[in-house]
Amino acid sequence: MPSTTHEQFIRRVKEIQIAGSIESLLDWDQETYMPPKGAETRAAQLALIAGIAHDKLIGGDFGRLLEQVERETDGDPVLATNVREVRRVFDRKIKLPTALVEEIARTTTLAKGAWAQARAESNFARFAPHLEKLLDLKRQVAERIGYTTEPYDALLDEFEPGARVADVQRVFEEVKRELVPLVQALQTAPRQPDASILARACPVAQQTAFGLRVAEAMGFDFAAGRLDTTTHPFCCGFSPHDVRITTRYNEHYLPMSLFGIMHEAGHALYEQGLDPAHAWTPRGTAVSLGIHESQSRTWENLVGRGRPFWQHWFPKLQAEFPTLRDVKLDDWHFAINTVRPSLIRVEADEVTYNLHIMLRLDLERRLLTGQLKVSDVPAAWNEGLRALLGVLPPNDAQGCLQDIHWSLGIFGYFPTYALGNLYAAQFFEAAREAMPDLAATIARGELRPLREWLRAKIHCHGQRYRATDLVQEVTGRPLSPGPFIAYLNGKYRPLYGL
Amino acid sequence: MPSTTHEQFIRRVKEIQIAGSIESLLDWDQETYMPPKGAETRAAQLALIAGIAHDKLIGGDFGRLLEQVERETDGDPVLATNVREVRRVFDRKIKLPTALVEEIARTTTLAKGAWAQARAESNFARFAPHLEKLLDLKRQVAERIGYTTEPYDALLDEFEPGARVADVQRVFEEVKRELVPLVQALQTAPRQPDASILARACPVAQQTAFGLRVAEAMGFDFAAGRLDTTTHPFCCGFSPHDVRITTRYNEHYLPMSLFGIMHEAGHALYEQGLDPAHAWTPRGTAVSLGIHESQSRTWENLVGRGRPFWQHWFPKLQAEFPTLRDVKLDDWHFAINTVRPSLIRVEADEVTYNLHIMLRLDLERRLLTGQLKVSDVPAAWNEGLRALLGVLPPNDAQGCLQDIHWSLGIFGYFPTYALGNLYAAQFFEAAREAMPDLAATIARGELRPLREWLRAKIHCHGQRYRATDLVQEVTGRPLSPGPFIAYLNGKYRPLYGL
Repeated sequence: MPSTTHEQFIRRVKEIQIAGSIESLLDWDQETYMPPKGAETRAAQLALIAGIAHDKLIGGDFGRLLEQVERETDGDPVLATNVREVRRVFDRKIKLPTALVEEIARTTTLAKGAWAQARAESNFARFAPHLEKLLDLKRQVAERIGYTTEPYDALLDEFEPGARVADVQRVFEEVKRELVPLVQALQTAPRQPDASILARACPVAQQTAFGLRVAEAMGFDFAAGRLDTTTHPFCCGFSPHDVRITTRYNEHYLPMSLFGIMHEAGHALYEQGLDPAHAWTPRGTAVSLGIHESQSRTWENLVGRGRPFWQHWFPKLQAEFPTLRDVKLDDWHFAINTVRPSLIRVEADEVTYNLHIMLRLDLERRLLTGQLKVSDVPAAWNEGLRALLGVLPPNDAQGCLQDIHWSLGIFGYFPTYALGNLYAAQFFEAAREAMPDLAATIARGELRPLREWLRAKIHCHGQRYRATDLVQEVTGRPLSPGPFIAYLNGKYRPLYGL
Repeated sequence: MPSTTHEQFIRRVKEIQIAGSIESLLDWDQETYMPPKGAETRAAQLALIAGIAHDKLIGGDFGRLLEQVERETDGDPVLATNVREVRRVFDRKIKLPTALVEEIARTTTLAKGAWAQARAESNFARFAPHLEKLLDLKRQVAERIGYTTEPYDALLDEFEPGARVADVQRVFEEVKRELVPLVQALQTAPRQPDASILARACPVAQQTAFGLRVAEAMGFDFAAGRLDTTTHPFCCGFSPHDVRITTRYNEHYLPMSLFGIMHEAGHALYEQGLDPAHAWTPRGTAVSLGIHESQSRTWENLVGRGRPFWQHWFPKLQAEFPTLRDVKLDDWHFAINTVRPSLIRVEADEVTYNLHIMLRLDLERRLLTGQLKVSDVPAAWNEGLRALLGVLPPNDAQGCLQDIHWSLGIFGYFPTYALGNLYAAQFFEAAREAMPDLAATIARGELRPLREWLRAKIHCHGQRYRATDLVQEVTGRPLSPGPFIAYLNGKYRPLYGL
C-alpha cells in the first residue's frame, strides 16, 4: 500500500489517543492536586479535549481514510490489528446519532443526582424513573450498535471487545455452583481467622514507604510513573513511559493501602509493559477491561494474598511496623484471607466478590430484555443476595442503590471485574506450568520473573489478540471456570481446616 | 449585531484560550510531578494541543468571523477589547509564513543545544553563528509584523502590546542616570548590612509553612490555587479559579523561598483577580508581561522588603525559626536589602537588577539594527557591565552567555522585567496616595486592603486598557522614572546611612 495513506492513518489514530491521554492527565490532576474551586475550569478543559478527540475520530474524512486503509492492509499484522480496533471504535461512535448521545448525557446528569439522593434517603422509587429511562436509551444504543444474540452483547462489547454474555454467563454459572457451597462451608469451618490483627495501628508514612518497596519489587518503574493519594484509587497511563497509580490510607487498616497499591501497580505493569513503538495505537493499547483487571488481581490476590509472598515480606513488614511483631506469619496470612459474606461489593473478599458481580449481571440482562421490571429491582436484588450469600440488605442504600454505575448509564461493565478474576487464575496456572518454581521464586522475594512472563505473554501484544484469543494463546484453551475454582478450593479449604 | 456572530466569536476565542490553559497544565505537571521518562510523551501532548490552538486561531474561517465581528461591535466596550486583542494576536500569527515559523523552530532547537555547550565551555564563538541566524530570522519577523519606527517594536509588542522601545528607553535612561551613582554610593556607604544572617539554618518544612501563611495573608485563595516545589519557580493560571505557584528552597537561604513565594503569589493575585465572567477572553486576561511583573514585584519588593511588613511578620518569623531569635528587626530588614553589584541577573538585588536589563536591551536593539556585530557581543557586554555596575565577568559563561533567552529566539522580552519594577513603583505611589495609612495597615499585618486596591484598579480590567493607558488611568500620568527613583533613594540612602 502507498505508505502515505498508512502513515496518515496512523498519525490520525495517534492524535486521537494522544488527545485521550491529555484527557487522562486532566482527570488525574482533578483527583490528585486540583484545588476545589477548579472544577468548573476543569469541566471546560475536559469538554474541549473530548470534543477534539471526537471530531478527529468521526469528523471530517477519517471514515474514508479508514476504508482506504482497510482495502490496503496487505497482510501487515500490525496494521491489521490497528485497523480492526479502530473500525470497532469508529463504528460504535458513528452508529449513534448525536441526538441519542446528547439525550444520554442529559439523562445521566439528572440520574446521577437522583441516585445520590435516592441512596441518601434509601428510597429506590426516587431513582426508578431515571433507571427506566436509561434502560430505554441503552436498548436504543444496543439496537443501533447491533448484536447477533441479545442486546447485552452490544453493551458488553464496549468494555470487553468480542465477548458474548452467553459464554460469560456459562462460565459464571459453573463458578457459582462451586462458590455458593464453598462460602457456606467456610462460614462454619473449624478454623477461623483473627481479622482484628489487621486493625493494628500502622503509621501512614511507613505504609507509603512499604507500599513503594513492594511496587518497586514488582517491577514498577518509578522513573516512568508515580504514586499519589486519592479518595478512589486508580491507575492511568499516558504512554508506557508515564503511568501513575494512586492509593488511599487508613492508619488502622493497612491492607487498604498495601493491596490497593499492589492492585493498581498490577494495572500499571500492564501499561508500562505495552510496546512503546506502538504507543497511541491499538497495537500498543490494553486488550480489554477484563484483561486489565486480570493483571491487577494477579498481583493483589494471587501474589499478594499468597503465602509465598509473605514468606519474604512478612519479616520486612514486622520490621517496619512494631505493632505486628508478635503476629505469626500463618495468622497474618489467614487474616488477610478472611472470607465473610457481606452486603457491599467493593468491600468483598476474593471468594464472595464474584457472587456480587453475578447478581448484577443477572439483573442487568433481565432489565435490558424487559424480563425484569425496574420496580421489581429491590426485591430481585435482595432475593438474589440472600440466595448467593445468605445475607439480606437492611435497606436499598446498602442493597440495589450501592453502586453508582447504572446512574452513569454504564451497563455491561460489571462482568469485566469477575472476568478479571477468572482470567487471572487461568493465566497464573499457565505461569506456574511454565515456571514450576514460581512459588519458591516469589518466596525468595523475586517478583520480576512473573512480571517478565506476563509482559512477554500478555503486555507486549497490546490489542494484537482479543481477550478470548489471548486466553487461548497464553493458556492453550478457552476461558474456563476450572483454574479459578481450583485456586479457591486449593487455598481456602486447607486455610479454614476443611 | 446578531448575537449569533458575537457568540460564535466568543466561543471560538474561549476554545483557543482553554486549549492554552491545557497547555499550561501540561507545562505545570512537567515541572512538578511528571516522572523523568515522561518527557517524550509530554512533548507529543504539547505538540498536539499547540497545533489545535493554532488551527483554531488561524485555521478555517476564523479570520472571516473576526472581520465580521469587527464590523459589528457597535460600541460594546467588552467586545471592543476582545476584538482588538484577538486581532493583534491573529495578525501576528497570520503575517508569519509557516516556512519562517518552522525555520525559527528548527534554528532554536539547534541554538539551544549550542548555547548550553557554549556556556559549559565558556566559548561564545560556538554560539555566535546561531545567534547570527536567529537575529536574521527575527529581523524577518519584525519586517513581516511591521513597525513604525524601528524593528525592535515589532518584537517588544509580543510581550508588551503597544509599547514602543524609544519610550521605554527614554525612561530607562533617566533611571540609569540615577542608579549608577546610587549603586556606587551604596558600595562605599558608612553603614553596611550583615547578610550572613540570611544564611542561618531554617528547616524547609517550616519555610513552606511560613510562606503559606504569608501568601494566605496576601489574599491568595488556596481553594483556587496551590503551592508546589520546582527548580524554576513560576505561576500559571488556568482560570481565576485555578492558579498555581511554585517556589524552591535552600535551608541556608530563607529569602529564596519566601520572596519567591511572595513574587509568585503577586502574579497569582493578578490571575485570581481577573473577572471570571470574562475568563478565556482578552477582557479576562492579564494586560502584558510588564504589568504582570509589576504585581509580583509589588509584593516581593515594595511590600516584602519593606520595614512595615516586617514589623508585623518578624516576630512570627522568629517564633518559627529559633536561629533568628537574636536578630534585631532593623538588622533583618537591612540584610534583606543588601545591594551588591554582581555578574548574574537572576541573583541581582532590586537596585542593580534594572541595570542588567538595560544592558541587554541596548545590545538587543543594536544587534537587531546591525549596529552591533555578533562577534562584538562579548566585548560590548563586558564594557557595558563595567560601565553600569563596575564589575567585569571573568568569562563569557558568567557574562553574555548567562541567559537562555536569545537561544530560544526570545528578543524584546527582557525590558518587561524592568518595566515591571517601574510600573510597580508608580502604582504603589498611587496606592499610598489613595490609602495614606497604607504603611500602618501593612505594619498591622493587614495586606488585604492593598490586594483589594490592586484588584479594583488593575486586575479586574483584564485587557480593557493596554499597559500605557492603564498606567495613565491608575496613576493619572504616563509611565515615569520618578516613582521608582524616589522609592530607591528614599529607602536605600537612609538604610545605608547616606
